[in-house]
Amino acid sequence: MTEITVRSPATVSNVVCGFDCLGFALESPYDEITVRISPEPGIRIVNNDDFGLPTDPALNVAGVALRALADDAGVGHGFEMVSSKRIKPGSGVGSSAASACGAVVAANELLGGRYSRKELVHFAMAGEELASGSRHADNVAPCIFGGFVLVRSVDPLDVVPLDCPPLWAAVIHPQIEIKTSEARALLPKDVPLRSAVRNWSNLGAFVVALEKGDTKLMSRSMVDEIVEPVRGTLIPGFEQVRAASLAAGAIGGGISGSGPSMFMLCETRESAVAVRDAMDAVFLETGIDFNTYVSPIEPNGVRVV
Amino acid sequence: MTEITVRSPATVSNVVCGFDCLGFALESPYDEITVRISPEPGIRIVNNDDFGLPTDPALNVAGVALRALADDAGVGHGFEMVSSKRIKPGSGVGSSAASACGAVVAANELLGGRYSRKELVHFAMAGEELASGSRHADNVAPCIFGGFVLVRSVDPLDVVPLDCPPLWAAVIHPQIEIKTSEARALLPKDVPLRSAVRNWSNLGAFVVALEKGDTKLMSRSMVDEIVEPVRGTLIPGFEQVRAASLAAGAIGGGISGSGPSMFMLCETRESAVAVRDAMDAVFLETGIDFNTYVSPIEPNGVRVV
Repeated sequence: MTEITVRSPATVSNVVCGFDCLGFALESPYDEITVRISPEPGIRIVNNDDFGLPTDPALNVAGVALRALADDAGVGHGFEMVSSKRIKPGSGVGSSAASACGAVVAANELLGGRYSRKELVHFAMAGEELASGSRHADNVAPCIFGGFVLVRSVDPLDVVPLDCPPLWAAVIHPQIEIKTSEARALLPKDVPLRSAVRNWSNLGAFVVALEKGDTKLMSRSMVDEIVEPVRGTLIPGFEQVRAASLAAGAIGGGISGSGPSMFMLCETRESAVAVRDAMDAVFLETGIDFNTYVSPIEPNGVRVV
Repeated sequence: MTEITVRSPATVSNVVCGFDCLGFALESPYDEITVRISPEPGIRIVNNDDFGLPTDPALNVAGVALRALADDAGVGHGFEMVSSKRIKPGSGVGSSAASACGAVVAANELLGGRYSRKELVHFAMAGEELASGSRHADNVAPCIFGGFVLVRSVDPLDVVPLDCPPLWAAVIHPQIEIKTSEARALLPKDVPLRSAVRNWSNLGAFVVALEKGDTKLMSRSMVDEIVEPVRGTLIPGFEQVRAASLAAGAIGGGISGSGPSMFMLCETRESAVAVRDAMDAVFLETGIDFNTYVSPIEPNGVRVV
């Protein structure tokens, strides 16, 4: 086998009370990535889309992740990668994670599957470091494992895949730009112990609710009084979208990643469609361009096409 | 039925990364509490032990909890309670919770079981408020439900019983006094966001580990860098007890409640005995009086004898 194509899913990280540790995978949108073994050493990147991402492998998140894997594997040959991105960079649903994960999962298949999924998360984090300046795994871990994944620790890497019932998500992506540096600068350095206690109580309950399939408990525990109050201000219509979504039957939701996308979890496809319609109605009033989509939670992560 | 006797178990709260929200019940020690319906209204308390607790029901945690239940129930008769405490007050394993919970569970049985366990937790919290000045539920909820219980929220009360594998605990009670006010004064008002993130990542993982019965993950996630570093200083030998316990095979552990007791979770009775022996060896060196015990996690909470 000298060529392989994978689908690499969008992911939602910073899941409300799970700031910096909890994410999940979406069935759509996804990127399609083909990786080939090439006889010459080095990594070549071809972008088969209009996003204008760098083709220099040292400046490309997938290139950096592939480099990390190739260096570890000590292969003599090179890799060529053709990326057909459908996940818009900067939208807040794990576009860079999809690129990095798709590349390393495909390359691993070409190498006979020598690496575990956890090791692939480790390589993909090199891409996240290039994209955001920090080695975080709450997009790459769900992208590779699928479903909901808790990242207990980044160093050492400790990834905990969670059971969850079948769930759907409605996502809205307002066409505004939020600079990661701006979203990061808003984060408080310290938080009141009382708020922190409420947050970990909520995260504990949310994780149990996922494991038990208790959507009512999920709903009660999807509360974030630490990050959302500051980052929500960057997203026009944030509170209205949430209120309309909950009124339309959403379990709960919040900011996806550091925004500008917002997500809402729903029990069924029908519910997610109703929530998307409610999101649409709110945003049509704002005059801001946006797009919305509906997707089941993707259970398996990056997969070979 | 005009009289009933219950056994009310000791409990461990503030379970490492579960500060202020996670507790579990022990099979021993326990209090034995008899409640009788008496024709005259009001509450009378007889203490059948040597702890010298107040018999004025307005100053007694069980009296206050019984009062809360009786007022809500609007009964015309009174209650007489005989308390045979074995859980030493102030030891940090939920002595006041055992009194309050035993009283309200017994009274509820006498009233035909009209209240749910969650409602009984609510009444018992009145006792905790008298004992400590705050309405917390992380001892009373596991005392009434048994097993591990996560308290997502106190107001409104939201109690989440957790699945867990069969586990044992080794507990050491150094005979020193830690004033609740002193333990409370040490708590930081604010905590670094990064520490808080690590704590909720650990709590999420610990709760999943309990649900899945993954003792290795439990072990990795039993980390507290927020409360333990300050409160641990009040307990002589704290770090030595932990190190010796882990070396003897404990899964993990920490301060029970606000101390001075320490607990260690273990996979088997044999392991818990070995850990208790290790605790004994550490404390024999200190010259401080202490006692240790070994108990399975109690799965059902207060029970009728």
